[in-house]
Amino acid sequence: MSTSERIWTAALVVIGDEILSGRTHDKNIAQIASWLEVQGIRLREVRVVPDLEDAIIGAVDALRVGHDYLFTTGGIGPTHDDITVDAVAKAMGVPVVIHPEARAMLEGYYATRGGLNEGRLRMARVPEGADLIPNRMSGAPGIQLGNVYMMAGVPHITAGMLDALTGSLEGGAPLISETIGCWVPESEVAVLLRETEQAHEACQIGSYPFFREGKVGANFVIRSTDPVALAQCAAVLEEGLRNLGRETTPGGI
Amino acid sequence: MSTSERIWTAALVVIGDEILSGRTHDKNIAQIASWLEVQGIRLREVRVVPDLEDAIIGAVDALRVGHDYLFTTGGIGPTHDDITVDAVAKAMGVPVVIHPEARAMLEGYYATRGGLNEGRLRMARVPEGADLIPNRMSGAPGIQLGNVYMMAGVPHITAGMLDALTGSLEGGAPLISETIGCWVPESEVAVLLRETEQAHEACQIGSYPFFREGKVGANFVIRSTDPVALAQCAAVLEEGLRNLGRETTPGGI
Repeated sequence: MSTSERIWTAALVVIGDEILSGRTHDKNIAQIASWLEVQGIRLREVRVVPDLEDAIIGAVDALRVGHDYLFTTGGIGPTHDDITVDAVAKAMGVPVVIHPEARAMLEGYYATRGGLNEGRLRMARVPEGADLIPNRMSGAPGIQLGNVYMMAGVPHITAGMLDALTGSLEGGAPLISETIGCWVPESEVAVLLRETEQAHEACQIGSYPFFREGKVGANFVIRSTDPVALAQCAAVLEEGLRNLGRETTPGGI
Repeated sequence: MSTSERIWTAALVVIGDEILSGRTHDKNIAQIASWLEVQGIRLREVRVVPDLEDAIIGAVDALRVGHDYLFTTGGIGPTHDDITVDAVAKAMGVPVVIHPEARAMLEGYYATRGGLNEGRLRMARVPEGADLIPNRMSGAPGIQLGNVYMMAGVPHITAGMLDALTGSLEGGAPLISETIGCWVPESEVAVLLRETEQAHEACQIGSYPFFREGKVGANFVIRSTDPVALAQCAAVLEEGLRNLGRETTPGGI
């Protein structure tokens, strides 16, 4: 594998006071990160911002340039605190319009649920020129404009939107990983880890310590886009750990 | 309460490839956010960045100005991918030195655990001028320099460091909240929510929909630093929901 191979990157803006107050534990970062890895796209930065237009615009402006894709989560629902569409439209210099197809989808969905009202119609508002991302869960679609993908805040709705996007975004070679677990304090093998990583240019090694069953251990995660380099690096690390008298657990502990 | 009362704010930089790959679900955002609320400090922005020096420096530079406090999590352990201390030192223009007290703490901790080695001694490195944040869990301290607080990546170790800091950071009136749960689609009550918020300047209302037991509902969270305004706003919202024929659940569903 050539090291000059194009690497596709993405950034994510998580929008919501509920995350910054600690009330809600974010699940979208891990969900979108894992999905992007499979698409061959690396998540490079995440920003969590409050439900304030200037904060959203600032983050969108900073991140939509310099990454192939920008995702947002949250703030596309029917209530007054849902301001993502307005903020992204301002950031991208276009007006907000009613998307006829989104309106039709919402009319269909709410036909047996009390009909469209002012709040529900908000969910048909998009930045001019945007396309829709289908959402089978609740009728309200996600929104795509240029390289910006606006997803729901509720994780299972975002999961459905990601499912609809699967395979449609161009990416590169997926980052693959191998995990080696070991009941060893990471501080005892720091030199081994560093030297093994230095000897395998195409690989990065992460060390993730834990404390379980009264003992300390660590999972060492080797990442690469090159399966051969990955296997070689894993073999060298396993041998190094065994030479220090430590048993290893392929796949992690 | 005067609306000109000083509001204390914080930002957080979460450092770690494991979060951006989706391998690890972050728990520090919610943990630090909740702790800050109790200290009367509002978490205003979070950035998640990879284990790359430039990315860490960029985030630290952007966020340590404009907020009263900046927290970081991750990257202060013994291994080669732990580069937070170096990055923060560069961002703040000071050299990295061995902190004698941290070295003594680590010597004590590792006396019965194989002694200090190169990797373990890394955990005594601090930006010059920094103070230590005690960590009873593993001997390796957190680090404070100016308004920057460097915490562990492992959530239970960060919990111990937060515990050590409790009450030591100046803050303002804590943001308090009241939650009203209701089995109603949020899209049915969007106008009520917006008008109630507009009528209560000192309060913000967030709407958090869910789908459970085959039904849609929402929790409405009212936030304010003023307990009287909070109670008034909650009463108005509850009355409004009841007037629409909906039962409410104080404290949330």
